[in-house]
Amino acid sequence: MHLAASLIFAALFTCLPVSSICVQDGALHTRDHAGFTYTGETGPLGWTKPKHNKLCSTGKHQSPINLVAANAMSTKESLTIDISDVDSGELENTGHSLQVKAKGTVKLGEQEYALSQFHFHTPSEHRVDDEYYPLEMHMVFTRDSGKKLLVLGTLFEVTKDSSIDLIATLAKSAKELTDTKKTATTEKLVFSGIKAHFDSASNTLYKYEGSLTTPPCTEGVTWIIVKQTLSVNVDDFLTFKNVMKFNSRYTQNTLGRNNLITVAKNNYPKA
Amino acid sequence: MHLAASLIFAALFTCLPVSSICVQDGALHTRDHAGFTYTGETGPLGWTKPKHNKLCSTGKHQSPINLVAANAMSTKESLTIDISDVDSGELENTGHSLQVKAKGTVKLGEQEYALSQFHFHTPSEHRVDDEYYPLEMHMVFTRDSGKKLLVLGTLFEVTKDSSIDLIATLAKSAKELTDTKKTATTEKLVFSGIKAHFDSASNTLYKYEGSLTTPPCTEGVTWIIVKQTLSVNVDDFLTFKNVMKFNSRYTQNTLGRNNLITVAKNNYPKA
Repeated sequence: MHLAASLIFAALFTCLPVSSICVQDGALHTRDHAGFTYTGETGPLGWTKPKHNKLCSTGKHQSPINLVAANAMSTKESLTIDISDVDSGELENTGHSLQVKAKGTVKLGEQEYALSQFHFHTPSEHRVDDEYYPLEMHMVFTRDSGKKLLVLGTLFEVTKDSSIDLIATLAKSAKELTDTKKTATTEKLVFSGIKAHFDSASNTLYKYEGSLTTPPCTEGVTWIIVKQTLSVNVDDFLTFKNVMKFNSRYTQNTLGRNNLITVAKNNYPKA
Repeated sequence: MHLAASLIFAALFTCLPVSSICVQDGALHTRDHAGFTYTGETGPLGWTKPKHNKLCSTGKHQSPINLVAANAMSTKESLTIDISDVDSGELENTGHSLQVKAKGTVKLGEQEYALSQFHFHTPSEHRVDDEYYPLEMHMVFTRDSGKKLLVLGTLFEVTKDSSIDLIATLAKSAKELTDTKKTATTEKLVFSGIKAHFDSASNTLYKYEGSLTTPPCTEGVTWIIVKQTLSVNVDDFLTFKNVMKFNSRYTQNTLGRNNLITVAKNNYPKA
C-alpha cells in the first residue's frame, strides 16, 4: 500500500507562504505533500526534491528528535488541556496516517491553541534516551489562523493488557481502513486518559521548538511530549501497523546543529 | 546507553581491503566500526565520515531494503541449514546489538558457508511490502576466509503468546545485559524452529545481493529472508528493546538505483 495525502488542519481559506502552510477547502494543509512516502526516493531522504520542502534537508530545528533530560519542560510553565468527549468521530486513512479531525483547546501559559486533528505514527518518531516505542500520537493545535502550531505527543508501549479507551475505540474502526482515503465512523471518543497523562504530577513533560515531521518540514512548531508511555494492546497495535505499515521519519540531529542531510552532503566522498 | 562495538565474525588473522573486512584476534570484523551509533551525527547519515565507509553514502546495492514480490528466491535454488542445538551460548551486548557466537553451516546450491554469529535489530531493518516488524534476527555466515558473506534473516511479530524457544531463552539472559560489553551465559539454544521456518514449503523466501547494514556497508552480501514471521512475546520484545533501544538502519533505495544519500545530495537546495 502506498500512503497518499496529508497533514490536514481545520481552518480558513488562505495561504501562509512563510510557513509553507496553506488553508484550502476549510482545511489547513501543507503544500506538495501528496507525493511523499516513507520508502525510497519519495521517502524522507527525497522529501527535499520540491524546492519549498528545502527545510527537510537544511533546517536545524527539525523533528523528531531523541528526547533527553535537557528537553524537560519547566515546571513553571502551565499547560491546560480542554478536549470534550464526542459521541463519535471520523477516522481516516489519509495515506500517510490514521487521522481524526477533532475539537478542543490547549492553553500554554496565556496562549490558547485550537485542536484540529490527531494522528498516529508507527514506530514512534520521537525516541526517549535512545529508545523507540511502537506507536506515537500527535494532537495538532493551531493559533493565529494556522501561523503557529503546537503538537502534543504521546508514546504508547505495547502490552498484553488493554489499550487506553481512545486507542481501543479507534482500533475497532481502523480494521476497515486498509485502503487509502477511506473513512470510518467511530464509537464514542474519550479523551480523559490523554488529558490525565499530561496533567499527572508524576509524569515528565518534554518541550522544544521543532518542525513538522512531514514535508514541507516547516519549523517553529512547539512540541510537548510526555516521557511516560500509555498502553496499546498487542492486537490494537497490529491493527494500526497493518494499516500504516511504517510512517516514521528518522531521528533528526540535536536542535541547532546542522541538518543530518547537510552533514551527509558535507561528508560525501570526493569522486 | 550508547552502543559500542561490532559485527564480529569468527575467522583467521588477515585483512581483506577489498571488502574492508579485517580478521584480527581470531575474529573477523569491520574496520572503524566502533564509533558508529543510531543517533545524530554518528548515526546512519554520518556513517560515511571515515573514508573507508564511503559505500554507506555511495553504494547502490545497500541493505536493508523494502522486500517485494520481485525479491522472491527461485524455488529452483536449494538451501540446506545445519545448526546443532548447544547446551549453552554466550549472549553479548556488543554495544550495537545483542549477539551470540555460534557454529553451523548453510549450503546454498553447492556453496557451503560457516555460521559465525547471530544478532538482533529492533525495529526490523527489512520491511515487507512497506510494513516493518518489531524484531529481526541476522545469522551471519562466511566462506573463503570471510571474503564472501551470507546472512539469513528472520522477522518477528509481537504476540501475547509464547516466543519461539530460541528467543525465550535469550530474553532470560538479555535482562542482565543493560550495560554495553557485558555477556551472559544462556540456557540451551534450540535452532530447530529457525531451521523449520526456512525449510517450510508454505513459506516464501526472499533473496538478494546487498550489503552489511552497519559500517563499512560492504556490498556483495547475499541475503535470504523469510517473508513470514516468527513470534516474540510482549515481555521478551520489551526486554530486547530495553537493551538495544533502537538499532535499525533506515530503508535503502531500490537495488541498483542511486544511494539515498546521493539522491539527497543531488537534490540539496542551492544556497
